[in-house]
Parts: sequence; C-alpha cells; structure tokens
Amino acid sequence: MTSHWTEDVSACVNARLASFFEEKAEEAQATSPLAGELLLAVKDLAMRGGKRLRPAALFAGYRAVCSSGQVQQTGDVGAALELLQTYFLIQDDWMDGDEERRGGPSVHASFTQRYRDPQLAASLAILAGDLAVGFAFELLHRAPFPTERVREGYAAFSAMHFEVVCGQQLDLLEHQDVSLMHHLKTGSYTVRGPLRLGALLGDASAAQLAALERFGEPLGVAFQLRDDLLGTFGDPRVTGKPAGHDLREGKNTVLIADARDTLPAEDWHKLKHVLGHDHPSAADLATAAALLERSGVRARVEARLSALIAQSEQALQGAPLTSEGSAMLGDLLARVATRDH
Amino acid sequence: MTSHWTEDVSACVNARLASFFEEKAEEAQATSPLAGELLLAVKDLAMRGGKRLRPAALFAGYRAVCSSGQVQQTGDVGAALELLQTYFLIQDDWMDGDEERRGGPSVHASFTQRYRDPQLAASLAILAGDLAVGFAFELLHRAPFPTERVREGYAAFSAMHFEVVCGQQLDLLEHQDVSLMHHLKTGSYTVRGPLRLGALLGDASAAQLAALERFGEPLGVAFQLRDDLLGTFGDPRVTGKPAGHDLREGKNTVLIADARDTLPAEDWHKLKHVLGHDHPSAADLATAAALLERSGVRARVEARLSALIAQSEQALQGAPLTSEGSAMLGDLLARVATRDH
Repeated sequence: MTSHWTEDVSACVNARLASFFEEKAEEAQATSPLAGELLLAVKDLAMRGGKRLRPAALFAGYRAVCSSGQVQQTGDVGAALELLQTYFLIQDDWMDGDEERRGGPSVHASFTQRYRDPQLAASLAILAGDLAVGFAFELLHRAPFPTERVREGYAAFSAMHFEVVCGQQLDLLEHQDVSLMHHLKTGSYTVRGPLRLGALLGDASAAQLAALERFGEPLGVAFQLRDDLLGTFGDPRVTGKPAGHDLREGKNTVLIADARDTLPAEDWHKLKHVLGHDHPSAADLATAAALLERSGVRARVEARLSALIAQSEQALQGAPLTSEGSAMLGDLLARVATRDH
Repeated sequence: MTSHWTEDVSACVNARLASFFEEKAEEAQATSPLAGELLLAVKDLAMRGGKRLRPAALFAGYRAVCSSGQVQQTGDVGAALELLQTYFLIQDDWMDGDEERRGGPSVHASFTQRYRDPQLAASLAILAGDLAVGFAFELLHRAPFPTERVREGYAAFSAMHFEVVCGQQLDLLEHQDVSLMHHLKTGSYTVRGPLRLGALLGDASAAQLAALERFGEPLGVAFQLRDDLLGTFGDPRVTGKPAGHDLREGKNTVLIADARDTLPAEDWHKLKHVLGHDHPSAADLATAAALLERSGVRARVEARLSALIAQSEQALQGAPLTSEGSAMLGDLLARVATRDH
C-alpha cells in the first residue's frame, strides 16, 4: 500500500543510526571499559527493527510544506525520534514487566539473564535508557537546519517528551481517562508530533500547521485503536505477539474502556476475572475475546477507527500542503488503516 | 571564604528555576490532571537546596575568559546543570536505596509513602527524573548565546551526561577502578565539566580551555576525596548525614580502596565485616573509622587532597585567564579545600 519513499526513509534513518553508534562506540571505548555494554543494549534495541513510522511521519510533514525536501535532510531528526522511542520502550518494558520486545528480550530482561539480579538489571536498563535519551537530544541538536527552525523543532520535541512522560504516568496510575492517556502516550509522538516537527523544520505557515494537526490528531488516535484491536484480536503469526496478548496482560485498552461502559454486569465480571488473572487459560482468553465480539464492543471500536480514518482523509482535501506531501500523508493513512502487525 | 558572587549566582539560578517551574506548572495543568504531581516532585528536590556549586563553576569558567560577563548570562545554563543534577540524584537514590536527600525524603521514598507500592513508586520516580532531564536539555537549548557557542556548549553538556551515566554503571557493577568511577561520576560534572561549559559559552581559546582543564581536573578529584572524608568522618551535626554514613552504606570510597591495598589482612577483614553488614552497630562503625584513622588511611587521603589542591592552585599561576575569573576560581578552590558539609 505504502510506496517506496517510506523504505528510503527507513534506509536513511538506519544508516544514520549505524554511523552514530559507530561514533559512540569509539567514545565509549575511550571513556570506560564497561560503557560498550550499555551502548550495545541501546544499539541492539534501536536497530532490531521497528516500523520507523515516526521518521516517515516526520518526513511527510516536512515534505508537505517543502516540496524540494530530500530524505537526507531529516535523517538526523528521524534517528533522534527512533532513539527517543528506544528510551521510552526500555522504560515501559521495565515498568510493565514485559520480557520481550521486537522479537528479542527487553533490555532489563537481557541484563537480568546476564547478572541474575533483577534490581541491578533494572538500574542498568534505566542507565541504557539514559544514554538513549541523551543521544536523541544530541542528534536533534545536530540537525542541519537554520537556528530558528532547530529552536522551534526543539520545542516541539520537548513537548512530545513531556506529553509521553505524562501519558505514562496516567497509565501507571490507571487513570480512568483512557482517551487522554492514549492521546498523550501514543497520539502525541506517533503521528501528530513527528508531523508537526517535520513541518516546523520546513518553516510551515500557521495554516499548514493547522491542516497537519487536523490530519494527524485523528490518525494518531486511529493508530492507537488499531494497536488495541491487534493486541486483542490480531493473528499471532502476523503480529508476533501471543494470541489475546492485551487481555493476558490486563491492559487498559479502548476495548476494555468501552466494555466497562456497555457490558451487562454479569459479562463485565466475567471479563474482569480474566483481566485480573495472573495466568488466564487459553479457554478463558477465547471466552473474553468472544464476549467483546458478540457484545458489539469490537464492532464499535472498528467503526470509530473507520470514522477517524475518514476524518483524516477529509482533512487532506483542499489543505494548503504540497502535492508530494499530501500523497505521502495518504500513504501513511493507508498504512494505519490496513496494518496487521 | 567565598565571596558574594557565589550568592549572586545562587540567587540568579534559583530565580530562573522558579520561573521555569511556574511556566511548566501551567503546561502541566493544560496537559493532564496528574502531571502537576510529577512536576512537584522535581521542583521540590531541585529547590530544596544543594550548594549550587555547578552553576558557580560554570560562571567562573565563563568569567575566566570573558571579563565583562554578567551572572544573568549563564542563568539558564546554570539552571540546566541543577536540573541535570536533580535527575541524577533521583535515579541514584533509587538505585542505591537511599531514602533521604537534602534533608527530606528522596523522590522514590516520597512516592512510596504516598502509594504504598515500591515498584509503582520507583516507576514514578523514574518518570520524575525523565521530566528533569528533558527540562535540563530544554533550558540549555534556550541559552542566550550565539548558535556556534550553544552548539559547542551542547556537545560539552552531552559529554558530561554520557560520562556520569558511564560512571554510575561502574559504581553499580562495583568496578575495581574506583578512580575512574569517580573521575566519570563526580569529577566530570562537578567542576571540570561546568568550567569547560562556561568557557566554551564565553568563546574560550584552546590555551584557556587547557588552563581550565589543568585547574579543574585535580579540583574535581579533590572534591570527591573531601566528599568521601566527610561521608566517613564528618560531623553529623554539620553534614546532615548520620555518623559513618558511607561505612554504613558499604560505599566504595577512596578510603576503602586505599584500605584494601594497604591494610593487613586481619584489619581488612574486620573492615569488610562492617561494610558487608546490613545494619552495623554504632560500636562497629566507630571501630572501622578508628581503623582507617590508626592505619594512616585517612592521613594518606588527606595528604592526597592537599596535593591536589596545591596542583590546582599552581595551575592558576600565569594562566591566560581574566583576573576576575582567576579570583573566582581561587574562591572555588578555597570552598572545596575547607568545606565541612
């Protein structure tokens, strides 16, 4: 569905990350005999894949206001976004107790295997995250843009960082406003933030920023809904996560929020029993998924998703954006609408 | 001993921090109903005191190359250094299990009191640290200096961040090279780093940077030795820490490193027994301190401290620095040489 430009963006970001890590490996070696190990933990996770969706959104935002923009131009900032993501993933996985990430052990799990001491491993994982966030800010700062553009981009980047941290806090404290939590934790820096950052680097007008906001806000929420649907109903062979992953983890998804509001008390208790269970059986998980299906919760979330996609689609019509950029935004939209992993 | 300029620096940094936190409080309120709590944790610790030694070293470094420099000029960067320190303290206290800091509860201890869940409290403390480091980079980025100066300052700031994280890793893994650990964890961003940062912001020549390095490197080590001496022999009424604090915590200080190399096996075992004990008795602590005293370990560390101070003093003679700046560096030296808390 998405065309080759997203692959160009991925290739560029991967190359930047690779050369940045080479540079840092030399610095690490000159600094301390053990620093390389910490660096490797960051590098492993950052290079182990991921969809590079944020750098793609960044470039689309840039190109949407600057028709001559080249992929290389936003390479450093795209790499910065990936390192910001790496840092958040390291911390999230530790906070949620997730042992797996991107088809391998999470950072704290890998340190636990090595040192057989969960508290030490947690501390080392946090230090690895520290390196990653420092690298993210450093790369952002190096971006080859005029001072004023970097300054505005920096403010947008800091705002994203702030929002994600606040979203994670809401998640940890199980705040009832799940939409706000998603808006901050995912919406902010998955689509909306990178689009805005790219546009600011490209010297966007206020009208262009507003158009991108109208496009990006619903798409970010749609991304989250798709994520929740895949986490509950996704095909394990395609998602790479076990069936019913989010139910197993007791995650506070939009599906659960909807079920809480709409299910008859008896069904809700059945569902809660599965969510509150440490090791629910496969049969329990299947029952819970069937319940969400039969009661119309899944259909409602899917309908909301479609409406959000339509809203983003509509925001593109007549928007004061370059035709190249608009086409890319359309590609991103299709990617979120149809992704299966 | 130190003159009023250090008070001017403290007042300026405190004012910047206060107005920055006001600005952020508005942002927090607009972001999420709970964000204010996280922000308050950062603010409480950042404003709860501390010696503001780093902003003083920063300004002295700046003034050493720029005789007309005003305190206000380095206010944002000084505040950034304090927020970097706040972030490191939050993480350190959690990693070391320290419940007290600057005369109040450490951040994770305060969240534990509130939520009665140590794992949740640890996660929230890490998030508070995340805010602090984001703020530090943001303030640094705003500094009112020409682009090229900010760029160089930024690289120095990132290098400090990198070194401290690597030093903390050595500390956690109890690496045998205690000098390297101290060089990275304390030396780097207590004296040497802030001096260099200030000098870079003031457009220092290579000769000036080298002179400040010759001055700052021994002084940073001296600061750490003083810290270790106070942590073991300091007067609890002055330091605000319990007597024999570092022995109680089993800390890997320079005193212990020296004792390991020089004590007869029998004495070393006695000392190790105290260090390895979860709750050593007051009598055990007194015995251990007396052992370090009698065996000459304390005197050796004090002699090293004096030699380092003399080395820094000598580095100032004939250095290509402004007379105002040199006087300030002398004040810093006196402060490290004589501090009792």
